Order: sequence, then structure tokens, then C-alpha cells
Amino acid sequence: MNEFQLIARLTRSVPSNSAVVVGPGDDCAVLDLGGDRQLLLKTDAVVEGVHFTADTEPERIGHKALARCLSDIAAMGGTPTAALITLGLPKDFDAARVERIYAGLNALAVRTGTAIVGGETTTNPDRLLISVSVLGTVPRGQALLRSGAKVGDAIFVSGELGGSLQGRHLDFEPRLAEGAWLAGVGCIHAMMDVSDGLAGDLRHILQASGVGAELLSRSIPITREARAQSKGDSSSKPPLLAALTDGEDFELVFTVASRDAVAVLDGWKGKFPEVKLTCIGRITEEPGLRLRDERGLRGFDVGGYVHFQGNGVA
Amino acid sequence: MNEFQLIARLTRSVPSNSAVVVGPGDDCAVLDLGGDRQLLLKTDAVVEGVHFTADTEPERIGHKALARCLSDIAAMGGTPTAALITLGLPKDFDAARVERIYAGLNALAVRTGTAIVGGETTTNPDRLLISVSVLGTVPRGQALLRSGAKVGDAIFVSGELGGSLQGRHLDFEPRLAEGAWLAGVGCIHAMMDVSDGLAGDLRHILQASGVGAELLSRSIPITREARAQSKGDSSSKPPLLAALTDGEDFELVFTVASRDAVAVLDGWKGKFPEVKLTCIGRITEEPGLRLRDERGLRGFDVGGYVHFQGNGVA
Repeated sequence: MNEFQLIARLTRSVPSNSAVVVGPGDDCAVLDLGGDRQLLLKTDAVVEGVHFTADTEPERIGHKALARCLSDIAAMGGTPTAALITLGLPKDFDAARVERIYAGLNALAVRTGTAIVGGETTTNPDRLLISVSVLGTVPRGQALLRSGAKVGDAIFVSGELGGSLQGRHLDFEPRLAEGAWLAGVGCIHAMMDVSDGLAGDLRHILQASGVGAELLSRSIPITREARAQSKGDSSSKPPLLAALTDGEDFELVFTVASRDAVAVLDGWKGKFPEVKLTCIGRITEEPGLRLRDERGLRGFDVGGYVHFQGNGVA
Repeated sequence: MNEFQLIARLTRSVPSNSAVVVGPGDDCAVLDLGGDRQLLLKTDAVVEGVHFTADTEPERIGHKALARCLSDIAAMGGTPTAALITLGLPKDFDAARVERIYAGLNALAVRTGTAIVGGETTTNPDRLLISVSVLGTVPRGQALLRSGAKVGDAIFVSGELGGSLQGRHLDFEPRLAEGAWLAGVGCIHAMMDVSDGLAGDLRHILQASGVGAELLSRSIPITREARAQSKGDSSSKPPLLAALTDGEDFELVFTVASRDAVAVLDGWKGKFPEVKLTCIGRITEEPGLRLRDERGLRGFDVGGYVHFQGNGVA
């Protein structure tokens, strides 16, 4: 049983109450306690030897630990309010290293207006673990879910994809301003962040929305790193496959009715001129994910990245 | 450097914002986003080999993981709304065991009206770790902090103390109804939950409030377990010392002006006839914690339980 199968079993019937608007299964939970904003909740953990190594610069570990959660807040169109930090520390922990981890985490918190309101340390005898929980808010009814994609929608992705493990996974900036802007434009149908590879993550939108998708191969934005890593190394992934299946991009993927697509693209360019936004395909009635290239249309079955099966650093 | 020293260094200057009413250092953080209720946030983790063993009944592990956080919500006088669960799973995890852990956790969630709104699994190669974050609410301005104790206050504790590691630490019911009732009576000055031993925890109230305390030895409520464990084993703690320093009691300790003490005690007896409430001493101007017994008054310097120094199961 892998991570996704286990989560599916555990969340089949979880306790709920009248405050819950969206429970497990989206980038964040959405809660309504009254007022003009709804609450977003998200938790995420990074573990030594899985998400970073003993050699990783401590500030970047702290940055990544918080940034992953903030990326999920961004993916709902939300704004972060506060975070709780749990440190699982080995018995011989290095206090200076922990302080540097906090320094990286605090720097991102300050930049994004996120208060750090609690810290807990516990013993995790064998390795460092950092679990972060974030509370955010979104204007009532504006949270962008995975389940809203409609047949005919254009599919957009921010930035460029692939090769993140060469370094970007430790330094990425969560797309908070972009996500909040997208929630505000009022015509985005579905959104999530790309953390497990575009192909795998897009499939979550397709399943939640009961639709399929067709992507245009040559439109997928590929990072320089993903292009470079395949040169001179025939065993590495071709750049397109890297862009579709590498994890840790932390870009936004969203869908919008085709009639609104040009307006969204124009608005984005005016607002975020330095961040690429690319239309990569469209939502179809036929289920599944298909890729169109010069040879025609074919199904795409590589399942994207599954953390728990241990395909390297996640 | 132990856990408390490290936390003190890490939280010396954490990022904050206008929503933060109470940041790190109390049982929960308190946030104000408008409306007639304030938000409470708390996170806590349990780790195999530290807080439970490989032999512990899985349902009790799940119960404990959530109950610890709920005890902190209770200690603020709050009501739980939703929880996020992070599972750090070893590579060869036993799915049936994880499902039983969730069953125990869910049962408590249902009983306390807590929605489970997100789950994350991550690899923690060597041992099972469960980190829980809880969002709760409390009527505006009613959150009971550690910092409000006043000279002359009577000190009360719920239930009985000591010997929790014989089993109660896995089965205790968080004092949610009691905590919310105490917040509502309007005259409680300071409150926290007893998780690291009464003597150590009371010291947090004393430091936060800038006061001292005098306890009456013979009034400390001692569990049957703490009395029994010292019988026939001269190496174990005397019962009073166990009640003052054993961890994991998860009772409430609070202070109230002496003029209101009888009314609170009477109200409690009417409302919670099956839960003991004991006046154990009073708040003094002289700092520090002192114990009065038949031999007179003496300082009490055993520092209570410090998780991180590894004094056994915490």
C-alpha cells in the first residue's frame, strides 16, 4: 500500500462538523466559522534523508519546511496568517543548526506576513523532522478547489517545470500573490499546486472534477535545469518527461473557461510580468490524461511522483 | 541545552502580525480574526519509543495523540473545531496498525466534536511519529492564560496526580467541558494543563505571572497508582513526589481570587460531580514554589519533568 492508497483508506470517513466546508483531499481544508473570510488549514513535514540531507544548508531546510505549506495556501487562493512548528530532534541535536533552520523559516515568515505562534520540540531519536501547520484565510466563497474544472477549460501553469531537485526545491517562493490574485479574478474553475509532478497532480484535478485533459507537448514550460540534466546523460529523463513527472515544482496549475483565458493571461502579465504563465492544454470530457505531439495523441500513464515509494528526495 | 532552553532561544523573537493575541509560550496560541470568538492553535507530537512503545495498543496511541492537543485547548477554556494529522511512517509500516491508530483518534474526535480535516503521511524511516495540530475557538476575551495569577489567589487542581505512566497517559479524557466552563465563570485568573508534572508546570504560571506559590502537602490529590507504586519498592518515588513530578497527568491547574474560590468549587461540584477539584495552596508575593507540611515550609526545587532529557516515557 502506498501513501495515496493509505490516505484514501484513512480519510474514507473522517469525523466532520458544521464548520467544515472542505475536508481532506484538497490542498488545504476550508473551515467556516462565520465572518467574511473562511479559514484554511494545512500541515506538511520534511524529514532528513527524505526531503533534505545532513549537508543541506540549514536556512534552506527551514525555508522549504514553511514554503511547502505556504504553497498549499497559495493553491487555494489564500493568505497565510500563522504557523506552528514541530521539531523532531535526534538526541545529539546541534542547537546552532536548529537556530539556523529557524532563521530560514523566520525570514520567509516575515516576508509573507506569517506569524510563528507556537513551537514544539519532541525527540525523534534517529533523524531531524520538521512538521509545519499553517492557518490561512480566503475571502468567503473564493477558495479555489480541485473539483471545479469544466469541459473546455484552458489549463494554465505558472513558471517552468522539472529539475527542481537540483536546488530549486530548497529555495522556491510560494506563489502567494499569484494565487490570491487568481482567487480574486473570480473566473478560475480549479487550482492546485504542482508538488508531485504535473502529470500526477493534474490527475487529482481530473479525478476530483470528473473530467479528462489533453496537453500540448511543445507548450509545456521546461526549466533550464531539466533540459541540462538530460544532456550528456542518456540515462536521465528526457526534458519533457522531467517537466511532467519531477516533483517539487511548487508552481500553480489552474483551469479557466476558454472565453476568459485571454483576459486572465493579460491580467497576469500586467500584474506578474516576471513570472511565466503558459496555457498547456484543455479539459476534455474523455477521462484520463493525454499528450498531443507531432506524432499525434497518446495516453500518458506515468503516474507522477509518489513520495512514499521512495523514489529519492521528495 | 534541553527542550525548554532551546524553545526559549527559538521563540525569543518570532515573526508576528496583527492577528496574534498570544504567541508561543502558553498552552495554545490565540488569534483574533474578528468575530465573537478567537481562534486557538496547538500542535503536539507523539513518537514511538518516547511516548508509546511498539506494544502499545494502536487505538490508545491514536487517542493519546489527539487527547494531548485537546488538553491544551481545554487549558485555554476553548472548544476544539478541527485537527490535522501527520503520520511519519517507517518504510515497512503496518497499514492495519495505522488504521487502528486512526480508529482511536477518530473515536475521540467524534466524542469531542473535532473534525479531522487533513492528513499527511511522510516517511520517517526508523519509527512511527504522529503529529497533531488542532484549531479551536474561545469566546472573545475569555481565553485563560498562564500569566494572570495574582497574589492571594487560591490554586486548584482537577482530578488526581501521579503514576500516569502506568496506563492513564494513554486513556485520559481531556478536560474540555471543565475548561470551557471555567472560562465562562469569568473569575479564573490563570490556567494551564498539567502535562510535565504539577511542580514544573505550576512554575510556568508563576514565572508568567511574576508570583510565587505555597502548596499544602497533605492537600495534593494523589492517585491510587502513585500510592501503589511506592509500596514494596523503596527505589520508587514517594507518592507525594510522584504527584508533584510525574508527567502526563493532563489535569487542569488554575488560580482564582480567594473570595471567589468557594463559589467556583460549589459550581464545579454541581456541574462535574464525578471529577475531583482540590484547593492545593495559594499564590504568594514571594517568588518560587514552596511546600508546607508538618515540618514547616520548604522550597521545592525538583524541576518537574523535562521531556527532552529522556527521563523515560513522556
